[in-house]
Amino acid sequence: MTRIAIVGVAGRMGRTLVAAVEQDAEATLAGGVVEPGSSLAGADIGELAGLGKCGVAAAASLDAIVDDFDVLIDFTAPQVTLANLAFCAAHGKRIVIGTTGLSDEQLAELDGYRDQLAMVFAPNMSVGVNLTLKLLETAAKALGDEGYDIEVIEAHHRHKVDSPSGTALKMGEVVADSLGRTLKEHGVFERVGQCGPRDAKEIGFATVRAGDIVGEHTVMFATEGERIEITHKASSRMTFARGAVRAARWLAEQDNGRYGMQDVLGL
Amino acid sequence: MTRIAIVGVAGRMGRTLVAAVEQDAEATLAGGVVEPGSSLAGADIGELAGLGKCGVAAAASLDAIVDDFDVLIDFTAPQVTLANLAFCAAHGKRIVIGTTGLSDEQLAELDGYRDQLAMVFAPNMSVGVNLTLKLLETAAKALGDEGYDIEVIEAHHRHKVDSPSGTALKMGEVVADSLGRTLKEHGVFERVGQCGPRDAKEIGFATVRAGDIVGEHTVMFATEGERIEITHKASSRMTFARGAVRAARWLAEQDNGRYGMQDVLGL
Amino acid sequence: MTRIAIVGVAGRMGRTLVAAVEQDAEATLAGGVVEPGSSLAGADIGELAGLGKCGVAAAASLDAIVDDFDVLIDFTAPQVTLANLAFCAAHGKRIVIGTTGLSDEQLAELDGYRDQLAMVFAPNMSVGVNLTLKLLETAAKALGDEGYDIEVIEAHHRHKVDSPSGTALKMGEVVADSLGRTLKEHGVFERVGQCGPRDAKEIGFATVRAGDIVGEHTVMFATEGERIEITHKASSRMTFARGAVRAARWLAEQDNGRYGMQDVLGL
Amino acid sequence: MTRIAIVGVAGRMGRTLVAAVEQDAEATLAGGVVEPGSSLAGADIGELAGLGKCGVAAAASLDAIVDDFDVLIDFTAPQVTLANLAFCAAHGKRIVIGTTGLSDEQLAELDGYRDQLAMVFAPNMSVGVNLTLKLLETAAKALGDEGYDIEVIEAHHRHKVDSPSGTALKMGEVVADSLGRTLKEHGVFERVGQCGPRDAKEIGFATVRAGDIVGEHTVMFATEGERIEITHKASSRMTFARGAVRAARWLAEQDNGRYGMQDVLGL
Repeated sequence: MTRIAIVGVAGRMGRTLVAAVEQDAEATLAGGVVEPGSSLAGADIGELAGLGKCGVAAAASLDAIVDDFDVLIDFTAPQVTLANLAFCAAHGKRIVIGTTGLSDEQLAELDGYRDQLAMVFAPNMSVGVNLTLKLLETAAKALGDEGYDIEVIEAHHRHKVDSPSGTALKMGEVVADSLGRTLKEHGVFERVGQCGPRDAKEIGFATVRAGDIVGEHTVMFATEGERIEITHKASSRMTFARGAVRAARWLAEQDNGRYGMQDVLGL
Repeated sequence: MTRIAIVGVAGRMGRTLVAAVEQDAEATLAGGVVEPGSSLAGADIGELAGLGKCGVAAAASLDAIVDDFDVLIDFTAPQVTLANLAFCAAHGKRIVIGTTGLSDEQLAELDGYRDQLAMVFAPNMSVGVNLTLKLLETAAKALGDEGYDIEVIEAHHRHKVDSPSGTALKMGEVVADSLGRTLKEHGVFERVGQCGPRDAKEIGFATVRAGDIVGEHTVMFATEGERIEITHKASSRMTFARGAVRAARWLAEQDNGRYGMQDVLGL
Repeated sequence: MTRIAIVGVAGRMGRTLVAAVEQDAEATLAGGVVEPGSSLAGADIGELAGLGKCGVAAAASLDAIVDDFDVLIDFTAPQVTLANLAFCAAHGKRIVIGTTGLSDEQLAELDGYRDQLAMVFAPNMSVGVNLTLKLLETAAKALGDEGYDIEVIEAHHRHKVDSPSGTALKMGEVVADSLGRTLKEHGVFERVGQCGPRDAKEIGFATVRAGDIVGEHTVMFATEGERIEITHKASSRMTFARGAVRAARWLAEQDNGRYGMQDVLGL
Repeated sequence: MTRIAIVGVAGRMGRTLVAAVEQDAEATLAGGVVEPGSSLAGADIGELAGLGKCGVAAAASLDAIVDDFDVLIDFTAPQVTLANLAFCAAHGKRIVIGTTGLSDEQLAELDGYRDQLAMVFAPNMSVGVNLTLKLLETAAKALGDEGYDIEVIEAHHRHKVDSPSGTALKMGEVVADSLGRTLKEHGVFERVGQCGPRDAKEIGFATVRAGDIVGEHTVMFATEGERIEITHKASSRMTFARGAVRAARWLAEQDNGRYGMQDVLGL
């Protein structure tokens, strides 16, 4: 049983991580930390997550729970994460990091710990997204030169500010790499007006923004007579939380080093 | 029983029309015409359509079958259609026209026959597309001002030269009209890069071009917690052929005049 | 501005209702109640919902907030709801009830209050589901006798115990009613083995159970050449919460009586 | 360039094969045969396929074109296919066989030729279906033991008599095999009434029968927070025709033997 602690258990992602650990038969919820000054310190972290009492109270700092856990999961903010990383290195803990938005300098600081502890650092911890990238590689190699048109369709919620999504671009890159193409040359990001027939080597992107869609990605391979579609649909933060817990369990048995989700999944 | 003749029975649309008439319990396949000089004159038109012998031979001209039919169906080319229209007016026949690409001058010539015979002229004879437009109006009126984001997603085959499709634009217009918006002001046809969060009144369009997709259109209404999607998928020319046969049956009982599919369907 | 109070703000549905009120420009979050004995009494109900402080503390009973609200929203359990209904009737409040699982006796008791206050009682408050039922009626009437096959496909999470869903059956009934058919005679709930070709008047049901799917329903009308699909996808409890808030706003201006969602939406 | 001849060029599948050869840059349409006694012998086989004249006339027998082709493609009926197989063996030709419905005795007769010529024999020549089976194996191995529910959803036209489809069952078997399960023990083919929550190891099947759907198969892997869906959609016989032409090109360079599509695709 891997003893897991979670940073930010009063936040949305923290609550989701609590639920993911509770569901995992091979992991134990060993502790949780709230933001300094929160009115929720001392509250039961199961109750905070809407799951009913679990008997573990939210702590105000990592010091308070240092003997209770083996692996820390951190989806917070760069500064907080770097401080927690230093804490884990100093106390012989492992850490799974899902924090995004680190600057190049912060990334370098993070990387400096790679020999001092075992960490998983991944911008997208979804098991499904990482598997999908593998499936796309297989499909592109089998189909790409046989007249199949390739399109990437993604949909996200109304608040998303960039387009196409980073995951859609990543999927497109994996397909392009497999076929000796590049998105720079073959990516088509808009089609408006009289744009003429499709070029056989295009990789097209279509984008939907609406409602509360967490994230849906489809890569279509279509030719005369058939289509193959490989689709990933995230329905909640749980997909990232479950990936993080899987990473934590796996990490508990690894040597010092910096790992990604492909390592965790063995793909 | 409506006696139907078809122009261009050796072409793809003509063959499909033959099959649609054969399937309709209230219509009879009364004749078919091939292009002048075709090697297929005299062939059985059922066999030409891949349906087995039906006992009706392909004729070389309308004159040869003038006594056999009541309604002509014509999905050919503007010049051919206008000649056939004159023939029908002169011989007391009705006509269903699915030909596209008429110039303004040709449209005026066509319209000049409206008091001389009964005709249905419609750029898209699909029953489903015409129903979908009606459903969109109902949905837009019920949802539009309550925080639902509206997106139009369409997919067509690799050969299509314009984007978005005329049908997608028509769907967007119906929605916009129902909500007092316009596509000119609220239509969003591309999203690339840092385009910021979605405006609540946007009507977004996303376009897929791949393989042999005959035509798929979805209008999505999405808000926090739910989506309603109204989708039309054309799988073959049969959707247009069936609409044309339904129009022919309906037209057999109408007075002289020019009609559209909304008239045929009573929507 | 409609002043709304919510029962059970520490539960999952209660938290969602808090978020829905906070998002609605024409409604005010006026109060919230937690279960007797909960450790969360006194906590900020915005913070409980993961939204940050909103300045309203969770109360231990309705008595404590009786002067603060106009409409109560209650998605709890039959006994609790009936007690709250009595409270609202006694204090001149209105109530929106989304509680399910009432016995016939409890339903009769609820109905007994219809002249004493204004209430909305609906088993499914989703605006989209209620609109979808209306769209299905329109589509069935336009297509049903013209050779379109009708199928209902639904997907729900792994924990759902009954199949097909109540909403899927309701959709099938609406379609059947529009066509003079009945599910008893024409509903087909399983197809296994050599079951032969489809009967033209069948209304088929297909069921998927997997993962955390909140609820997806598609009704397909398909014939040779085309399909029309009308789809509703619930992505979270928010769909029910938003419907409840819309009902509360509408209810604030109604006379005493018992109403349903069709009344609220004016369909 | 592989010189290909086609049996049954006046039938639907024959016409589609003609179109598929015409589209393939590395194959030549070398001849075609019609049924004995057909009125279409002597017609241009391009014109028969609705493609315009190609300069090759339909022959009444294989003898008439024996010097023109290297590989024969045959999607006809068991007796016809066995006669053609004998012809090919006698004249040093290769053969691609997509005929279905052979009895065990006929299969044995077919297999008897495996050392006398090079043949591809496959019940489903779709490249996409065969690739999909490979993707399913990869996905099942990565996800199956981590709490993902697996469901197979298939849709076919109204005339299909068996359910679920053979391809759906094959997909389920591939998944089951990858996970050490069996469809006999874990396949669930109906869910009606109070059937209780889903068992974690179930492989569920859902079936849609409507309109003219050529064949759509989706395998869904769903857990809390995400879904992966692998979908194959056949839109026309062209998917089988293209697979057959690809098989013919590949077969032209093989030694005597009996091969399947996995051999052709190198999966």
